[in-house]
This record gives sequence, structure tokens and C-alpha cells, in this order.
Amino acid sequence: MNGAESLVQTLVDGGVDVCFTNPGTSEMHFVAAVDKIKGMRTILGLFEGVCTGAADGYARMAGKPAATLLHLGPGLGNAIANLHNARRANSAMINIVGDHATYHLKYNAPLTMDIEALAKTASDWVKTSRDAASVPKDAAQAVAEALKHPGNVATLILPADASWNESTGPVPIPEIPKPKPVDHKTIESAARVLLMGEPTILLLGGAALMEEGLWAAGRIARATGARIMANRSNGRIQRGAGRAVFDRIPYPVPPALKMLKGAAHMILVGAQPPVSFFAWRNMPNWLTPRDCKIHTLCTEKQDGVSALQALAEELDAPEQPAAVYERIRPELPAGELTAEKVWMALVAMMPEHAIISDEAVSSSRTADQLVATAPPHDWLSVTGGAIGQGLPVATGAAVACPDRKVFAMEADGSGMYTLQALWTQARERLDVVTILFANRSYRILHQELERVGVDYDCPRARELFKLTNPHLNWVDIAGGMGIHASRAETARQFNEQLEQAIHTPGPHLIEAII
Amino acid sequence: MNGAESLVQTLVDGGVDVCFTNPGTSEMHFVAAVDKIKGMRTILGLFEGVCTGAADGYARMAGKPAATLLHLGPGLGNAIANLHNARRANSAMINIVGDHATYHLKYNAPLTMDIEALAKTASDWVKTSRDAASVPKDAAQAVAEALKHPGNVATLILPADASWNESTGPVPIPEIPKPKPVDHKTIESAARVLLMGEPTILLLGGAALMEEGLWAAGRIARATGARIMANRSNGRIQRGAGRAVFDRIPYPVPPALKMLKGAAHMILVGAQPPVSFFAWRNMPNWLTPRDCKIHTLCTEKQDGVSALQALAEELDAPEQPAAVYERIRPELPAGELTAEKVWMALVAMMPEHAIISDEAVSSSRTADQLVATAPPHDWLSVTGGAIGQGLPVATGAAVACPDRKVFAMEADGSGMYTLQALWTQARERLDVVTILFANRSYRILHQELERVGVDYDCPRARELFKLTNPHLNWVDIAGGMGIHASRAETARQFNEQLEQAIHTPGPHLIEAII
Repeated sequence: MNGAESLVQTLVDGGVDVCFTNPGTSEMHFVAAVDKIKGMRTILGLFEGVCTGAADGYARMAGKPAATLLHLGPGLGNAIANLHNARRANSAMINIVGDHATYHLKYNAPLTMDIEALAKTASDWVKTSRDAASVPKDAAQAVAEALKHPGNVATLILPADASWNESTGPVPIPEIPKPKPVDHKTIESAARVLLMGEPTILLLGGAALMEEGLWAAGRIARATGARIMANRSNGRIQRGAGRAVFDRIPYPVPPALKMLKGAAHMILVGAQPPVSFFAWRNMPNWLTPRDCKIHTLCTEKQDGVSALQALAEELDAPEQPAAVYERIRPELPAGELTAEKVWMALVAMMPEHAIISDEAVSSSRTADQLVATAPPHDWLSVTGGAIGQGLPVATGAAVACPDRKVFAMEADGSGMYTLQALWTQARERLDVVTILFANRSYRILHQELERVGVDYDCPRARELFKLTNPHLNWVDIAGGMGIHASRAETARQFNEQLEQAIHTPGPHLIEAII
Repeated sequence: MNGAESLVQTLVDGGVDVCFTNPGTSEMHFVAAVDKIKGMRTILGLFEGVCTGAADGYARMAGKPAATLLHLGPGLGNAIANLHNARRANSAMINIVGDHATYHLKYNAPLTMDIEALAKTASDWVKTSRDAASVPKDAAQAVAEALKHPGNVATLILPADASWNESTGPVPIPEIPKPKPVDHKTIESAARVLLMGEPTILLLGGAALMEEGLWAAGRIARATGARIMANRSNGRIQRGAGRAVFDRIPYPVPPALKMLKGAAHMILVGAQPPVSFFAWRNMPNWLTPRDCKIHTLCTEKQDGVSALQALAEELDAPEQPAAVYERIRPELPAGELTAEKVWMALVAMMPEHAIISDEAVSSSRTADQLVATAPPHDWLSVTGGAIGQGLPVATGAAVACPDRKVFAMEADGSGMYTLQALWTQARERLDVVTILFANRSYRILHQELERVGVDYDCPRARELFKLTNPHLNWVDIAGGMGIHASRAETARQFNEQLEQAIHTPGPHLIEAII
């Protein structure tokens, strides 16, 4: 078999059986190999950021990596922003980036770029296959690197001749080192902190924010009075009725400071100490009180769930957490449509085990507490702050979980970055309901202009934050990509359209004029 | 004034008065500065690749740089593909990339990336301003670097605190070194080659492809019998009735080899020796005959136009070129619509001094000779092979040349990468007619699958190259972004719609079903 075939076989043997792709000439042998080697599902994206964002969403929900197939440096460039998000989500992913044949590089043909340098800016592991014979070994290593706890972005650069020349057969995936266990001394030390009776926060990240980790943290909270929190941006959170209560630290600095005020200790469980999203002039960027002591139960490279369970045992904690979310189905909203009413309607109708991809930015600021009482669900945040994640992540999550309803909660500004994801949803008939908050502005930037302390009028700046003149007609845009789309201008219209979208399989978009 | 204000003032003083932007919080002081410092026009793009592509088109047509304003690493990531194209076009451009405040970087907040490393992959010059006091000097240097012949991509990274802290006033632009003149010995040596009476090709690149350079080359051709050629991808070509005849080397290898066959000498005038776009297995990638001697009249860093003029004088060449294009207005096409008929209709109706941004890929393969006899026009190619350039470049060209009609000749596959450019065209009421060749496939990839020598059926691969199921409705997509859009299914419909678009100012899109 040729290099491309042995690559595809190695990936499939390693359990990687979905590939989000936007291929070109240099990737043609990989594409052809998928017709020969069985077991790889290929999904076309019309822009590379859709592919990497979808692979991220897939990894978060499937708990295993997808591959992407990208076209040289420019294809990888288009993919960088969502690779950055994926890396911040600790999503496992294997990017295959085609390159010119090795002997062609010296001629500096138009597409020639330093792909390795580019890949390193948003990957945890990068390698260029030297020749066809090296491909299966390199591919197996890429899978192993991607799978290292908690998940890594691995990028394998594949010269066209390494793809088309004769290679060996596939190679098994090397053994993946287990995460370093949290030693008993560290558990005891955390327990001592918790038993001091001083105000203590358990700050969870990574897998600790899944149901099991939260449950263990809730038991610790019950035993010790500790508060459970998470940073604002996380790859995946399991929340909703019956699950343990915790708080996400808000984006604006004043309420974040308020939430953390008085903490004497913070115990990190696979999370970074909370800092502000940006540094704002005349505002602190370190959010915990200066005299709050930071302790580490485990890093993100360790197993936070078992560490929390061991800590709960150490504390002889009760079986039940301090608090679980009640199930509250709000009344269906009426009257004028607002962002909050959109969320209320969603919580009123949300099916069990829905998946929410949140990129609503200023329109999801108040959603947190409301949605916490919805039926159990998974919440996927923009992890690296790179806008243009929401629609692709929803796409990949729907591929990973065909039996679950996915809601893409999307802002009109954010949605425009990678709107091509809608076409992939239509093509693959994915069960995604996109709710498009149309406030027809980069509303957050109006707020930021005030936050940064500009002390004069800025009519021209404010003009730049308006998505009017012309306004975006999302019903037409989404319809033009084959999506069933409708517009809601009142709460009642929204309720009706949402109900219909929930009960009709396949992709929908509701443009909510707020 | 603060750093941002001194930056804007330095740019404006340096003649940089257009900024294509997609800003965020870290760029807020720059955005606000534009309300205080007069003379900078800011143009919003809803995706960063639109901004850098527009700045590229602007530079190609204005002959001077625009600025872009981008949001940290992810914003720059989205801009990379069109920066790569811009760099390959030798377009002058100044990218301002906001970064976190310097004291915030150590906290690894979500948006933190190695922006310098990313910028270096697609810039000729990169610098991070250390503090507010350094900003005006750094900005002046950025302008100078951008303006160095033949034009460079300069990227200045601007930490938020360098932007908001107090700075000095603006700084004048340092003197820009003149390009190294071509010495008389080189001119004589090229003349000797040309007078040997052996088959010789003058291969032009850069400014030599503007009217004046081509005219001088044509005179040389008349004096010596040399043939004039250009590589396939060039930043800007001036062609059409009354201008000197030359040939572009085709994309497919066999006709390229045929065109270059028999050449004993090739004289490079700011061009690279011709190589194939990709390396294809079992096909040569070096396109000139093995025994063809390559000579260099000048590099792209020198002034090709004056070199050609000096060479013409050295040869005592006649005033008229060997051949100029006749003006031929074809009959308006009728019947079924094809790509060729679209081009025929365009040539039949094209106004004087139109600008063509060509990203039609497989639909512009046969256009070359046909359009050469149209009225004088400028032709802008995809220079770096990064798809998603056509609509943004047309946008920037229209900003640079408000009195000229711009035609974006766009494929449906290519158009989807940066379709957000249409919104900017609508917002700025730019005089761009987008002609969207809807063959509803990545047609070139069907051809490439055959070229790469895959010898078995690939139904699944071919499925990946189809833009059907669902097909893209460009009338709805463009209409949803405020563009006047129509669909032509016959040649007659196309003729009518094109005529109307040409005579009605403002942006239009015609979806040509071929």
C-alpha cells in the first residue's frame, strides 16, 4: 500500500474513523485511499476552520479524536483559530496537512510555506513525514500523542510523495502513558486545607467538570463547606437538574471579584488560577484575593475525577453533594423577544441530554443560572476566545452524538466567521438547532469601549461595531446553504419555531431578533 | 497622545489612510484613536481574511499600503492565508495585531498565543512594540518596511498597554532605500544573449507586467524576436487592446511544456523560473527545457521597468512593440450558458479600465486569450494559491479605484472561503460585479484525481468534490448580505443581468449556472 493508504489504515486501526476535510491536490492520495481502506467517514467542510472546529466538538463529545485533512500552509492557516480553541479545550485531534512533494519545495512554487512553523503555533505535537516508509509509524505516533491525557492537538505534515510512494502496512499505536496519579500526600494536604474551616474554593477544570467529578466535589463541599467553581471557559461542562451545583466565574471583572471575595484558599483541580479574560486598565487582572493561598490538587495532565473521589473518601464525605440543581421549567415567555426570553424558552422545552454550543457572547451572559436548572445537558464553551467556534463545534458534536439534540447558541457577529458550517450540517443532515441572536451589532465591543476607559465620544468607532447597513438576513444566508430557517420577532413566534425545530429532525436555524 | 493615537497619526502622516479591520477589546484604543486623529478611513470586515485580502487588493491597485487591524493570534490566524497571497504578490501592507497587555501575558489567559511566531509565517517584517514610547518609531519603521521595493508585508504587534499608555508624538517615516539599479554590464550581457539569434524568452514578473514594462519588452521582442511571457500567478497584469502581447504560462503541465519547448535562453525580469504549481507524479515540475540557459536581468527587488527600458535602448529597439492586442468585441453569446460564454459576454461589454479579480479556477482556464483583446484592464491573480482571495481582493481594489468597475470572477467553491467580503462591499457600496461560476463542484479536484494517477474508481472521493446535496443558492446567500443578486441559467439571461450590473453602480452578484 502507498503512504496515504497505510496512514488511513493506521488511523482506522487506532480508532480514528471520522475525518473532517477540505482537501486539495496534495491530499488527493489520502482522499483516494478512503475509497480503498474501509472504515473512515469523510465529512466535507467548505472552509478549514469548520473542519478543525468540528473535530474539536467531536472530540469533546466522543471522547476520542477525529482527523482533519487540510491543504498546505494556507489551509492550515484557515484552521489555526479553531485549533487554538481545541488546544485550550484539551481536545484530542489529528491534523493531516498535505505539503508539496519533498523535491518540489526547493522551487518555491506559489503554495510553499513553512508549514511546521505555522503548525507549532497551535499544536501540541508536530511532525513532518520524511518519506512514505515513515508514514505509518508517524501516524501511529500522532494518534498516541493526541490521546495522551487530557488530549492533544497532533499535526502530521504529509508531503505528496510520502503519500503516493510505496509504504509498509499499518503500525499499531504505541502504548500511551497513563497520567501521573495524585499521590496520597497531596490528597491529605488538600484535606487539611479543607478542614481548617477557612473559606475555600475548589476550582475545577477538564474532566472534573463532568458529572462524576462534580458529584465528588459536591460531596467534599457538603463535608467541608467549600465552594465549587469553574473558570468561564471550559471544553465541556455537565450540568442541569440532579447534578451538583457549582458557579462559573463571570467574564466582567467586578462580579468575578465579588464571587471570589473572602476566599482564603483555592484548591486547583486541573484548572488555572482565575484571571481576567483581558487586562483592563485600572482593573485587577488577578482575580483571587491577594492573600488567598493557591494549592494544587492536580494539574490538567492528571486525573481530576479520581483525585476528587480520593479526596472525598479521605474526608469521609457523605454520599450526597451539598446541593444539586432542581429541575425548573420556566413558563413560556411572551411579548417582546429578548435574549433572556430565548434562553427561558429553551429551558422550558429542552430535551434530556441536549448539547449546547455557546458562542452567544453578550447574549449568554445571564443564561448561566437559568440553564443550570434545565434537564441534564452538556455545555461547550469557546475555550480559547477565538470567535468562530460555535457553529463548527455544534457540527462536530452532532456527528459524535447522533441521538442527542444539539443547540448552537450563536451571536450574529460570531456566526459570520465560520458560517460555512451550516452547509455541512445540511449535507450531513445533522440534528442541530442554531439559535441566532440577532442584535445586529458587535454588542460586546460597545461595552468594551466603555470598559477600556476611552473618555470621549467615538461615533466612528461605534459605527464599526454595527452590523446594520446592511443588516444580515440570516434566514436567507442559512437558507442559501440548505438549512431550514425562520425568523422570530416576538417571544411567541420564537416559542413556536423552537418547538417545531426540536420536534423535526435535521438542521434548523432560528434568527431571533432581539 | 497615547500609543494608539501616535500610531494612527504616524500611519496617516506616512500616507496610510485606509484600515481594513475586524477589531476586538485589545484593539479598542486604536479604534477610538480614529475618532480623534483625522484622516484614517476604517472599513469593517466580518472575517479577518477579508481584511488582509482587501488590503492586498488595495495595495495592488493603489500602489501604496493599507493597514489592517486584527485581534490577537486567532484574528491573525484567520488572516494568514490572504497574507500569504499578499506576500506572494509583493503587496505593501501594515498589519497591526493587538495583543494582551504585557503584564497579562504571564497568566496565560484564553487568547494568549505566540503571535510573533504566527506572524513570521506570512510576513516579511515582524516587530512587537515593547511599550507606548516605542510605538511611533516602530510604526514608522513598519511603514518603511512595507514600502521597500517591491512591497512587503509588515506586521506590528501592539500590546494593549503600549496602546493605552502615554506616548510621544508621531515620528516621520525613515528614508526608504532605493532598489539596487541594474548595472550596465548586466544590460549588455542580456543584450548579447538576445542578439545570439537563439530562441529566447523574456519572463516578466512584478511591475514589469504593467503597461510600461510590457511595452519595453515588446520593443525588445520586435528588435530580437524574443518571446514575452509571464508565470501564471502575478499580483497585477495590465493587458488588453493596444498593449503589448505576451503569454501566461498555463497551469497544466503539458501545455506549459509545449509553450516553453525549444527555448535556448530565458531572461528573468523580476520573475522566478517557471515550475509547475504542484509536483505531479510522473510529470516534470521544472518547466523550461533542461538545456535552456537561465539569465537574470533583474530580481524582484530591483526595478524591472527601467531595466527593460535600458535594455531596449541598448538594443536600439524600435518604438513599437512586436505585437499589440487588437480590440475584439465578440458577439453576445446565445443558448446554453457555459464558462466560456460568460467570459465572451464580459469581453463584449467590459468598460474601459476595468479591474478583474480572478479566482474562477477551472472556469478561467480558457479566458486568457479571449480577455486579452478586451479594452485595457488590470488582471489580479491568486498569487499564493490560497483560495479565498478573489472576493476580498476585489473589495480592496474597489476601495482603491472608486471610478473603475471591478469584476470578481469567482468559483462557487472558492467563493465560500471568504464570502463575508460581500457584506463589506454592500456596506461600502463598492462598484463590484461578482460573477459566480456555479458548477456546483470542486471541479478542479475531479481533474486532479485523474492527474495524480489514482488507478481505481473513487466514488467516495468524488462525492467530496460535489457542492450539491444541498447546492449553494448564491442569490440567497449574497442577498442575505445586502447584495443585489440574480441567477442566470441561459446566455441571454446572463447578458441581460451583466448589462444591468455594469450600468447600475454598487455591488451585484450574478450566479451563472454553468
